[in-house]
Amino acid sequence: MPHNELRKDYLLDRWVVIAVERARRPTDFVKKEKTTVKADLCPLCPGNEHMTPPAILIYKEANGRIEKTKDEDGIRYSDWTVRCIPNLYPAFTPPTTKEKMGEKIFKRRNYALALGHHEVLVESPNHDEHPSEARISQLVHVINAYIDRLKWFSTKPYVRYVSIFRNHGYEAGASLSHAHGQIIATPMIPRLVKEELKASMKYWRQKGECVFCQIINEERQGPRVIAENSDYVAFAPYASVHPMEFWLMPKRHRSSMLLLTEAEIENFAKILKTCLSGLKILLNDPPYNYGFHMDIREKSTQHYHWHLEVYPKLAVWAGFEKNTGIYINTVQPEKAAESLREAIQNLKA
Amino acid sequence: MPHNELRKDYLLDRWVVIAVERARRPTDFVKKEKTTVKADLCPLCPGNEHMTPPAILIYKEANGRIEKTKDEDGIRYSDWTVRCIPNLYPAFTPPTTKEKMGEKIFKRRNYALALGHHEVLVESPNHDEHPSEARISQLVHVINAYIDRLKWFSTKPYVRYVSIFRNHGYEAGASLSHAHGQIIATPMIPRLVKEELKASMKYWRQKGECVFCQIINEERQGPRVIAENSDYVAFAPYASVHPMEFWLMPKRHRSSMLLLTEAEIENFAKILKTCLSGLKILLNDPPYNYGFHMDIREKSTQHYHWHLEVYPKLAVWAGFEKNTGIYINTVQPEKAAESLREAIQNLKA
Repeated sequence: MPHNELRKDYLLDRWVVIAVERARRPTDFVKKEKTTVKADLCPLCPGNEHMTPPAILIYKEANGRIEKTKDEDGIRYSDWTVRCIPNLYPAFTPPTTKEKMGEKIFKRRNYALALGHHEVLVESPNHDEHPSEARISQLVHVINAYIDRLKWFSTKPYVRYVSIFRNHGYEAGASLSHAHGQIIATPMIPRLVKEELKASMKYWRQKGECVFCQIINEERQGPRVIAENSDYVAFAPYASVHPMEFWLMPKRHRSSMLLLTEAEIENFAKILKTCLSGLKILLNDPPYNYGFHMDIREKSTQHYHWHLEVYPKLAVWAGFEKNTGIYINTVQPEKAAESLREAIQNLKA
Repeated sequence: MPHNELRKDYLLDRWVVIAVERARRPTDFVKKEKTTVKADLCPLCPGNEHMTPPAILIYKEANGRIEKTKDEDGIRYSDWTVRCIPNLYPAFTPPTTKEKMGEKIFKRRNYALALGHHEVLVESPNHDEHPSEARISQLVHVINAYIDRLKWFSTKPYVRYVSIFRNHGYEAGASLSHAHGQIIATPMIPRLVKEELKASMKYWRQKGECVFCQIINEERQGPRVIAENSDYVAFAPYASVHPMEFWLMPKRHRSSMLLLTEAEIENFAKILKTCLSGLKILLNDPPYNYGFHMDIREKSTQHYHWHLEVYPKLAVWAGFEKNTGIYINTVQPEKAAESLREAIQNLKA
């Protein structure tokens, strides 16, 4: 019996067993039944804006241009293109005046107030305009809106990180099926980001280059590459924790999304749509989560490189994973990349 | 709106948002429908031993005593009390002669062979004798069998850790519904264990005492205690990541299960059954994972303290958790403990 492989993440002290013997083909994961979220009345659809808190940011198209506005007290706009609203059940909430006046956020070593923000970005007036289906122009608005919120948050003294993520499908935690993403601003740098920042800083000090730039150079020529355009590479990471996991990385070194050019934003929308369409076709619209990784400081840093990580939700983390922090992945990343490349080829054909 | 709380684990750099506003009562999680695993023919039931590899360890009752034996080539015993077999789809596999002769396990910084063992412990000949229902005498056999395997593994030069865990219910990753646990021996100390060992060593060096002994002293007198007997305390940890999470800790300082007395084993069986019965009654037999944490070195260490962590599977980890490593728990640990205490009282009444 051949041994399985243990692979370690590029940066994190995170090991994964890449199963050989119990290996499964990507198509073993094709969803047969769909768990759909009931939506007699979708609170995110146009016309139902009164079911949500007032929007903090609205993009409206007027004369072919985007105007930025927001809801006012008692007024809800319904002719929006994208719409960013506070989460009705926020995990993190903004400080009150008292806390702004200098009350400590971190009260004890192991206790703090969950200060910050928790917002929902409604990606389209069309209920089903998910990124795999979306018009590129619409996805560009979505990304621009994220960048606008990111800029706003990064000026707040109590915000240390901004997590931008998307839950797709009921099994991946989406409680509403309308196309939407979420933004959570936190008062600390989350552990996963801190570890990446630390490890990439160490690499940069030792080698004088960005470890992510190095990863991109290697992966784009290897068996795990999925798609590429002039600004981005999509690949299955060497030590993928999730079956069919893939990452999108900008070729040009940038620590955050704050300084992207218009062309770079459009190319990101394109490769995101391509990859998610491929995944959708291949596995019958599986649930997934994605999240952006970045250094949110406005001044660019040389050691960190923003990217997006996409985790299809095809397996259950059970006792072993939770007991050890070691993962078992039954799809080899090389096989995952091959299937996604083929699915994307079929899309184009 | 009151702020949610951010709480940090006793030892790990792991933060959890304890939701106040979106807080849910424990009974909100009562399972309505059961996902059952089909078992026309259960490979773990007596009489079907030929469907599994030969047992490595068998307990048989004879004249009121336990005899230890194992299956031989071509012979499968069917009159067993507990039965430990190699997993048919092992994540980790034993070294071949070549590797035993000194071939390196860790071939590169980020690559190794998944050498080790992966076993299934069949907890009872009775399909449904799960710990919440089990005879105490049967649970004692289960724990003794774990300790036997642990002793065996701890002599192997290529084994650095042994993860003993249990998946209960389909949603928690149990692919067979027959009462069983699993044992995985790994060639490295897993990340989660390494971090606990490191943090508890640091505490011990600073304060000259075991941090877990300290935790037990505090928790057994506080609002998060669930149950107690002469040797163990059960409590909901301060920074529970999972709704309704609880831990079982031995009062006497011991770094592993290897040196437990008979009385301690029996008392562990009793508190385990009590707590899992309470959970079952309260939430209609929810899925859960549990895992033992220990220092597997035979010589007792002063800074580490073995324990069991039980994670009911009631929530989905979505984009935010996976993007940041920060968790959101919608049940306050104090509320979880209160409900479990009440459920256990009702059991006794």
